[in-house]
Amino acid sequence: MIHSLTSFFTPQGVAVIGASPNPGKISHGVWYNLTHSGFTGPVYPVNPRYPELDGRPCYQDIGQTPDPLDLVVIVLPARITPPIVKACGERGVKAIIIISGGFKEAGSTGADLEAECLALARHYGMRLVGPNCVGIMDLTSGLNTTFLTGRPPPGGVGFVSQSGGVCSGGIAYLTGKNIGLSRFVSLGNEADVTETDVIEYLADDPHTSVIAVYVEGIKNGARFMEVTRRVTRHKPIVMLKAGRTAAGEQAVSSHTGAMAGSAEACRAAFRQCGIIEAASMSELFDLSLALACQPLPAGGQVFVLTNSGGPAALAADTLSAQGLALPHLSQTTQTALRDHLCEDIQLANPIDMLGGAGPAEFEFALPKILADSHVDAVLVIVVPHLLLEAADTAHHINRAAAQSRKPVLTCFVGDRNVDEARRILHEQNLPMYCFPETAAHILSVMSRYAAWQQKKEDDGPPPTRAANRDAVRQVLARTNGSRGLGEADTRPILSAYHIPIIPGQVAHSPAEASEVAAALNSPVALKIVSPDILHKSDAGGIRLNLNTPGAVAAAYQELMTAATAAHPAARLNGVLVEAMAPAGHDVIVGMRRDPQFGPLLMFGLGGIYVELLTDVSFRVAPITRAEALAMIGETKAGKLLSGLRGQPPADLDATADCLLALGQLALDFPEIAEVEVNPLRVLEQGALALDGRIILENREAAEDQSHPGRT
Amino acid sequence: MIHSLTSFFTPQGVAVIGASPNPGKISHGVWYNLTHSGFTGPVYPVNPRYPELDGRPCYQDIGQTPDPLDLVVIVLPARITPPIVKACGERGVKAIIIISGGFKEAGSTGADLEAECLALARHYGMRLVGPNCVGIMDLTSGLNTTFLTGRPPPGGVGFVSQSGGVCSGGIAYLTGKNIGLSRFVSLGNEADVTETDVIEYLADDPHTSVIAVYVEGIKNGARFMEVTRRVTRHKPIVMLKAGRTAAGEQAVSSHTGAMAGSAEACRAAFRQCGIIEAASMSELFDLSLALACQPLPAGGQVFVLTNSGGPAALAADTLSAQGLALPHLSQTTQTALRDHLCEDIQLANPIDMLGGAGPAEFEFALPKILADSHVDAVLVIVVPHLLLEAADTAHHINRAAAQSRKPVLTCFVGDRNVDEARRILHEQNLPMYCFPETAAHILSVMSRYAAWQQKKEDDGPPPTRAANRDAVRQVLARTNGSRGLGEADTRPILSAYHIPIIPGQVAHSPAEASEVAAALNSPVALKIVSPDILHKSDAGGIRLNLNTPGAVAAAYQELMTAATAAHPAARLNGVLVEAMAPAGHDVIVGMRRDPQFGPLLMFGLGGIYVELLTDVSFRVAPITRAEALAMIGETKAGKLLSGLRGQPPADLDATADCLLALGQLALDFPEIAEVEVNPLRVLEQGALALDGRIILENREAAEDQSHPGRT
Repeated sequence: MIHSLTSFFTPQGVAVIGASPNPGKISHGVWYNLTHSGFTGPVYPVNPRYPELDGRPCYQDIGQTPDPLDLVVIVLPARITPPIVKACGERGVKAIIIISGGFKEAGSTGADLEAECLALARHYGMRLVGPNCVGIMDLTSGLNTTFLTGRPPPGGVGFVSQSGGVCSGGIAYLTGKNIGLSRFVSLGNEADVTETDVIEYLADDPHTSVIAVYVEGIKNGARFMEVTRRVTRHKPIVMLKAGRTAAGEQAVSSHTGAMAGSAEACRAAFRQCGIIEAASMSELFDLSLALACQPLPAGGQVFVLTNSGGPAALAADTLSAQGLALPHLSQTTQTALRDHLCEDIQLANPIDMLGGAGPAEFEFALPKILADSHVDAVLVIVVPHLLLEAADTAHHINRAAAQSRKPVLTCFVGDRNVDEARRILHEQNLPMYCFPETAAHILSVMSRYAAWQQKKEDDGPPPTRAANRDAVRQVLARTNGSRGLGEADTRPILSAYHIPIIPGQVAHSPAEASEVAAALNSPVALKIVSPDILHKSDAGGIRLNLNTPGAVAAAYQELMTAATAAHPAARLNGVLVEAMAPAGHDVIVGMRRDPQFGPLLMFGLGGIYVELLTDVSFRVAPITRAEALAMIGETKAGKLLSGLRGQPPADLDATADCLLALGQLALDFPEIAEVEVNPLRVLEQGALALDGRIILENREAAEDQSHPGRT
Repeated sequence: MIHSLTSFFTPQGVAVIGASPNPGKISHGVWYNLTHSGFTGPVYPVNPRYPELDGRPCYQDIGQTPDPLDLVVIVLPARITPPIVKACGERGVKAIIIISGGFKEAGSTGADLEAECLALARHYGMRLVGPNCVGIMDLTSGLNTTFLTGRPPPGGVGFVSQSGGVCSGGIAYLTGKNIGLSRFVSLGNEADVTETDVIEYLADDPHTSVIAVYVEGIKNGARFMEVTRRVTRHKPIVMLKAGRTAAGEQAVSSHTGAMAGSAEACRAAFRQCGIIEAASMSELFDLSLALACQPLPAGGQVFVLTNSGGPAALAADTLSAQGLALPHLSQTTQTALRDHLCEDIQLANPIDMLGGAGPAEFEFALPKILADSHVDAVLVIVVPHLLLEAADTAHHINRAAAQSRKPVLTCFVGDRNVDEARRILHEQNLPMYCFPETAAHILSVMSRYAAWQQKKEDDGPPPTRAANRDAVRQVLARTNGSRGLGEADTRPILSAYHIPIIPGQVAHSPAEASEVAAALNSPVALKIVSPDILHKSDAGGIRLNLNTPGAVAAAYQELMTAATAAHPAARLNGVLVEAMAPAGHDVIVGMRRDPQFGPLLMFGLGGIYVELLTDVSFRVAPITRAEALAMIGETKAGKLLSGLRGQPPADLDATADCLLALGQLALDFPEIAEVEVNPLRVLEQGALALDGRIILENREAAEDQSHPGRT
């Protein structure tokens, strides 16, 4: 089956509507690139103002162009574009790129024009890239429909971008640094073709070894996650995400709400899907270069070979800081090196062969080090100088690394003086960087990604637990109109999903409170019940460790008085009488529904430390048990639960159960916007929710969001 | 007074000993650069093998060279260097640069040769740079005694490096990126002239606006701090530090010891002295460029002007993440812009003038934005494209920024295609970077450094508190032979320095324990006293909340039994009976003596969370009260003490007093290697040490370290 995007990259024929002979125009740039980048299929200029262009016949309209014709590039003012799209549909075109701006990004008139183009494309079964984009480049077919001036060499990086500026900057960088490109798509407004569509296409493209993506927003979180999770198992995706929405703009109603913003949701989704997140534009391309050219390391043991100690020390600092090891060489390797290298050198890691080392020393030492079973990857750091010519050294290193199945990265410390060396190295697929920290950081990312690929596929979605959905429906019906549910209403919902709760019951008088306490047969805590008081402890709404009926009754009265003083208008629905909990570690588990990715689960250290320490981890539901345990494991709270300094470990499985249950609750009830259990007290055996609350969506809005995957 | 290093930079005459006509030799490179870089003073080749060199008379030995002669560059094998140094001394030379290696870095023979050269230099009153270095470059006098191939343009960056590789890489980068250099020194082995000497020289140099330094170790921490603290008040120092010593190699005997490693000491010293720490080699130079060329921002309000949204969004992310604000423009500015710019553009921050904006739009908009009082700095991000030529745009921006007293940084997103634009901008002292995140990060560093310069000088050393030094001496004498002092011995030492301690006393029998408890008139805690048990709680050596004489007596017996079970060989010196402390927040205050910088003070969250959370801050003693409060303020523990969510604040002043006291104790008693008070319970009024311990130096070693400033 031919992929519906194929015509964008390897079309049978291409027309440019609006092609112009005027070098000062975008439409000339597109035409010039299309006819000067090696594309061998037929190309047709379309422009009623010219009978011919560059010695080719120029067509009056798209209907007159000969066959074959798969792809049309439109460079016309927005307002006259829709009829042209229609003409393309009638002509039987398969794919359209609209370069021109003036659409959705320019206001409501433009948005209408864009919707019209999309409707026409859908009607005629055409795919549409853009509008408001830079175009497409394909280094396998020579197709170039962009108006950019640079063109990188052919290679393994597939590049997709939502921003035109990142496109042109990126293409300039790839060109300048001689980094090989397979295919490139500028997405523009994404009227039809999205980042996920192109990722899916490049995933199956044998010419693309790594997919580099710049995005500002993800169109369809669920599909994005489904596709990328599959792709990263065999092909790396490096992603740069810009434009965080301010979490502060939302009404913040819980700790989870305050901390689980859109940026966290996106980061969690990337992480769950094995996507490598780039921290900057340069990192997007530098990482992609290494992933495109070199194998992944089998482990985290990195060796540094150099002719200069300072840059190697900087690399070693970075490697160590990022968790990689610098192993010693085996005795065999040491002996082999010792016999041929200057005797002053220390056979440590890094090995500094000193300033006297020539290209031959690099060529000699590198294969020996690569052959050492203690070594998973090698970083070669060269400082060229008067007696060590960079380009010559590059040739020697190329030969030495040619047969390696382990990754080799190189760093030639310099600037213009190492340009030729870079060209030589990149031609042999050896990535070269100018700074030691960059290369060391990239090795650490490769190592983490290798661990992701090596990890067995997760154990699939967890078995459905027999939750009592009816009980939840009843509470939701009963509380109709409230957005925030207090502990009393939250208790039955958590119970319905098997989250264990500290025993307790609501009382409506001092006497009833004493009775409940007596029945619990334990010291008790009292908590005010009010739909208007979410932060009970701030309002003096909690009393702990009450031992006698008299103390319970008195505390009831005090709570009522204090709550009225703090919130005169609050509705008071009694007092919750709960058994005092056994000692344990307090954590927080929570969920906030993200508009793009769905239910975002949170885990972290509980109690008053939550927002102070921001020791939290996130995942998008549904998660597997392994992911729940991983969430716990990556926080400091997780280390605490695992048993610090000889303390017995707490029940990690019970904690994971709560996270899984919250995930299922969120998937079952889209009208729940936030859930928070804080604290969840984790015991040596089991865990107990000591407090909890739920925030509901605006109920009408919830209807629209119940299928976030299909908007 | 002429600085003793002046002859290294602007000498009256220069000789190169070992100068060679052979282009494959370092000594030829040095001679070539010296005679081809614009230096106009007399230069003399010295080499008995040649009668002349490049048409100049070549001298048999240094004694035969004519006057004037200030500076001699030696490029000879190490073993024949000392007699040449002697000859230089007899000839009346003022300064020597030894380029050659083969000295201390090559083993003990080389170390002896180096010591001999240093002794001779001292004897004759000569200063010595190197050995094993790259040389010196001075762009003000044209002097170039290096063998490097690049040469940057003249400018404001002074560059000092301990690594030859970082020297040559750095000079290549500065040259390639057209970044102006004032003077450059490669320090090599630092036999005589150190990084601090050169920093001191460059501080007074009117040609140097920023000092960029690469170091692996600081020779004399106290002098380094004294000099740099003064310099950074008026001239920025950017420092890249490599080669952390592994803290794990030391015997770790306290939390403070585990966390307060050499890297932390160095970072604390940098911070206290206003030194800007670079995170990488590229950052060292990129930061220096901006600091050399542009004024500091008066505040943290940054405006971003661009023709492309994507890169601007990346810049905005970085700016926000680093605490800078993106203000709106005033109505006046908005109106002025609105009238002349395309009406589609949003007057937000960033302002995206869209792809149609030309150089004239940048030239028009930039001065208007700079004139806006809401704006402290502007970042101009340009994405060149077919219709926007980079070099032309650079000229327009130069004109627009020419009169600005506010900092302007530029980012031209690209690679080779923006080289000419960079040259144009750098000639007008407008820094240019290729990636938006880089430029945004640099603005944030400039803003933090501006805050340092604006901050009033600290209030000087705190007044000496009348500590009871004799009491400390008595304890130290009594414990002679122990390295670790338990709580019982630590109590009187802390008391002597006015650190308040929870009331208590050591008891040696169950009956005595009950008596002490009765006298305290409070519930008590019991703690085992043993020089062999440092982590008491791990050994079951603590009982809390004992209310009755019987409970105290019983607990005494239990503690003894438990301690013997856990540590059969431990010496047990009774039990400490202490009043139970009032509620408060537990923090840790500690001190570890760093070999390079002296007493390193630590503050952080206390109790079991110390090592889990690593929420700690460091300073090198002595500190001022303002610094003590700043230490507290930069931790999460400090936020907790200041009162979270409506809680009353705890006593920050009393906490600062404890830090000041520990600093003074450490300065008074060099034999104290570590002190730790954990926890220090901070109350609403006052603070109480609940536990403490002290580790002593090996007492002989302490003698050597009592004057760390003079080694």
